[in-house]
Amino acid sequence: MKIYLAGPDVFLPDAVEIGRRKAAICERHGLIGLYPLDNAIDLTSPDASLAIFKGNEAMMDSADAIIANLTPFRGPSADAGTVYELGYMAGRGKLCFAYSNDPALYTERVARSFAVTKAATGHLIDGEGLAVENFGLTDNLMMIHSLELHGAELVMPRQRPTDIWHDLASFEACVALAADRATGKSD
Amino acid sequence: MKIYLAGPDVFLPDAVEIGRRKAAICERHGLIGLYPLDNAIDLTSPDASLAIFKGNEAMMDSADAIIANLTPFRGPSADAGTVYELGYMAGRGKLCFAYSNDPALYTERVARSFAVTKAATGHLIDGEGLAVENFGLTDNLMMIHSLELHGAELVMPRQRPTDIWHDLASFEACVALAADRATGKSD
Repeated sequence: MKIYLAGPDVFLPDAVEIGRRKAAICERHGLIGLYPLDNAIDLTSPDASLAIFKGNEAMMDSADAIIANLTPFRGPSADAGTVYELGYMAGRGKLCFAYSNDPALYTERVARSFAVTKAATGHLIDGEGLAVENFGLTDNLMMIHSLELHGAELVMPRQRPTDIWHDLASFEACVALAADRATGKSD
Repeated sequence: MKIYLAGPDVFLPDAVEIGRRKAAICERHGLIGLYPLDNAIDLTSPDASLAIFKGNEAMMDSADAIIANLTPFRGPSADAGTVYELGYMAGRGKLCFAYSNDPALYTERVARSFAVTKAATGHLIDGEGLAVENFGLTDNLMMIHSLELHGAELVMPRQRPTDIWHDLASFEACVALAADRATGKSD
């Protein structure tokens, strides 16, 4: 089973190293991890971003599953590029797994950065007057329920680890879920 | 042509009304707009969020195209639920259109809310040390290039309109693009 390793990990200063660690964990479980930075891209080319897109799309098309890192990125929700990839893989009928190293509810995450108030209707609203999703989930319902129906529930640690960008315990739990699926131990 | 109308519009206080306006614009162009709030959901049910997911997925599966509102939402990027839906529709091979009422570059959007500095390597990095995508695009490259390859380029106003949540000029430009595609005026 080939697994596309999606996440804002590619923006880390040690992005290549974390990709190697993730691929090694996949290998230990008998799976093949495909990491976006494995594609050789000439970053000095004016078409670099298009080449990255095409490389990632081809990599996703060649994979059987995705493990997406949905740890909140620059706001209360997951990284947009990663979320796009999760949606793309669900649309292609691939197996979808994901983890988040922040187990906080979406309402709590929003309240960290925005002034959330309760409207007369009982709804939570932000400073612009837009409703804050309040279903007891950790992020937007489209991702959370997609995982339940297209793969497995979002994996989260009980507590946010000290280093949310390098702790791979929840990632490895996703790999174990994928390996069980690959060997037919669960469906 | 049936078009799934994706966006954080559903979180607006006048969410139903803006859906009606969008559907009316589609109708004027000979298209059918499908709006998530058209699904009848019992919001008091404990399974409400799952019912919303299933309703949205069925609506997307029945649509030929998506018009996604990628206006930045609670941070520098688009709404995660909307981005998921754009990815899903691209994965399903549907036509993808989108607009953003904020034409600012992603680097500018990030700098509004985060301390961005230039590393010795020349890369822009945020306060956590993660690289800021800097390809002259308005949002993550996965969405921007997906649109080019699976539908049409992201539509944006020259200037951010006064009311970014209710101005539908760029939305209507997307509808016009979809209508041209539906009638074979462009490919």
